[in-house]
Amino acid sequence: MGSARPSSPGPLPMTSPDPAQRPGEFELIAKLFAPLARDAQGAFGLTDDVAVLGPRPGMDVVLKCDSLIESVHFLRDDAAATISRKALRRALSDLAAKGARPCAYLLALALPRWPDMAWLDAFAGGLAADQAEFGISLIGGETDATPGPITITVTAIGHVSRGALIRRNGARPGDLVFVTGTIGDAGAGLALLKDGACAPSEEARNFLLARYRVPIPRLAFGRGLCGLATAAIDISDGLVADLGHIAETSGVRIEIVAGRVPLSAALREFGGEAPRTVLMAAGAGDDYEIAFTAPASEMEAILDLARRTITPVAVIGSVLPGSGVAMLDGTGQEIPIGRKGYMHF
Amino acid sequence: MGSARPSSPGPLPMTSPDPAQRPGEFELIAKLFAPLARDAQGAFGLTDDVAVLGPRPGMDVVLKCDSLIESVHFLRDDAAATISRKALRRALSDLAAKGARPCAYLLALALPRWPDMAWLDAFAGGLAADQAEFGISLIGGETDATPGPITITVTAIGHVSRGALIRRNGARPGDLVFVTGTIGDAGAGLALLKDGACAPSEEARNFLLARYRVPIPRLAFGRGLCGLATAAIDISDGLVADLGHIAETSGVRIEIVAGRVPLSAALREFGGEAPRTVLMAAGAGDDYEIAFTAPASEMEAILDLARRTITPVAVIGSVLPGSGVAMLDGTGQEIPIGRKGYMHF
Repeated sequence: MGSARPSSPGPLPMTSPDPAQRPGEFELIAKLFAPLARDAQGAFGLTDDVAVLGPRPGMDVVLKCDSLIESVHFLRDDAAATISRKALRRALSDLAAKGARPCAYLLALALPRWPDMAWLDAFAGGLAADQAEFGISLIGGETDATPGPITITVTAIGHVSRGALIRRNGARPGDLVFVTGTIGDAGAGLALLKDGACAPSEEARNFLLARYRVPIPRLAFGRGLCGLATAAIDISDGLVADLGHIAETSGVRIEIVAGRVPLSAALREFGGEAPRTVLMAAGAGDDYEIAFTAPASEMEAILDLARRTITPVAVIGSVLPGSGVAMLDGTGQEIPIGRKGYMHF
Repeated sequence: MGSARPSSPGPLPMTSPDPAQRPGEFELIAKLFAPLARDAQGAFGLTDDVAVLGPRPGMDVVLKCDSLIESVHFLRDDAAATISRKALRRALSDLAAKGARPCAYLLALALPRWPDMAWLDAFAGGLAADQAEFGISLIGGETDATPGPITITVTAIGHVSRGALIRRNGARPGDLVFVTGTIGDAGAGLALLKDGACAPSEEARNFLLARYRVPIPRLAFGRGLCGLATAAIDISDGLVADLGHIAETSGVRIEIVAGRVPLSAALREFGGEAPRTVLMAAGAGDDYEIAFTAPASEMEAILDLARRTITPVAVIGSVLPGSGVAMLDGTGQEIPIGRKGYMHF
């Protein structure tokens, strides 16, 4: 873990421990974060300034950095272990959609004064659990004091066979449009937290909250898509918005059929009447499912991949000449789409 | 530039443009940041989810992430172009001290509402200038809204010949201790800003402020140190603190001679009587010079490297068996050292 000397002009404490009864920076790194780097050769036990990644013959290195900010991307009341896992999984999800296999990550953690050792222990515990699940290690990073919200920046690092990365720009007219998992669950989970909306059952509520708090990066499925998919993206801004990114970058039009957008039983319980729920789901974000395009000739291979990786996958539409994204009803009529996704500003 | 969908539970604006008269996120990326990625093959013009780094035969990939936070590491009044350059250069300085050659970086930018387009233009302009100076490109990143301070996280990416990275842990008894440039200038520059302390001359003041605001990563010199230095670190926490990291990781004692610590003419003007100024300089941070150890047998090669790269270098002490860092006066007596550097908490 690097040490960046803060030339603090501000009111932050210059000594340790601070009022939150935390140990100092170096002790914190040694106690909480060095164990997460124990098994990674190029991490040097977080006792050096940088991390090193050995070359893998025939492989490209894939990099993605992604920030999670308190009160923007998570709530202070969220469990620390789900906050750290979400920060990590969001970045892993980008690698998944590109067909890359993650191997390591860097962590930059800006901490205000309030998180105490119990919070930090749980935060690191979430990372440890996900490292074991995904076979990755922390290899470097940075901790800093901040007068603002907790800000967690993960740089995920992975590999993909040279040239095999699945881009956004390869969709071609005639391709089919696919999506993994179910759409809109995380958006409903956030609505439950924000608006206190009631889900019809405790089971549905728990499912939707879990989908919001701990997304599932579709890593094994994504890796299998190399050579099958012509374009792919992980759904973070929302199904329609992210398909829009593929349409724009590929120079094509994408049409999806509302009735084919996969919705969970919990979301149907929560959202009621189907068409309205589909529109909400397709405009919400944070799904971290993979939307992708592929020729119909790859259908069997894709279904086989879905079976092998136990990943639900659905065909929801097709690629045409033109531009933009449209949603059609059962009769082929276009359904007006409102807000198409989230912009950060 | 990735788009991480903010599942905003907070009070942030959900639409664009915002009150600061900035364009929306995607337009901002296209206008300001995509040009910074134009020349980098694996950046895809910031139109995809990840960045890709092609393998370089025989080279290791070196990674360092580092955050710069408003009111912690810089002042809001600082010029935007120097803020972005400092964020970039701090991470490059770590690569320099390890002997690595930078090639690219990722940028995660958390922005509150106040920076307007003029500020953002200047911020990107600073990055463009440094990209040209150091031969690197932006290859990916992330922008997010934040209710807190501007938080800039740079992940610097470089290469070093396989196994040639200069670690912290190789210092051996008998080695000499070296440092590049001059020490304490940035600390004095910060003191001028914080305390309104007066420098004796406008020239000295400008020099010290420039050293605080825009550090110089010693990249060419650092690359030349591969095979010469036994251990190295960039001085961010302070000369004594950072030599302490080498001493601890290498399992040695380091003794430096106060009169040999190189001080700039401006710092001597600012700090007055020499011994007190040396102590201040050795405890201040943000120097981003390289402190390193090497056998005396490499002295000629090091001086030759210094000449070729036009880098001032000084011998300031030696490595002994034992532990810790001591500062000696001209008679070999130990000078008591107070606070040994900065901890972030």
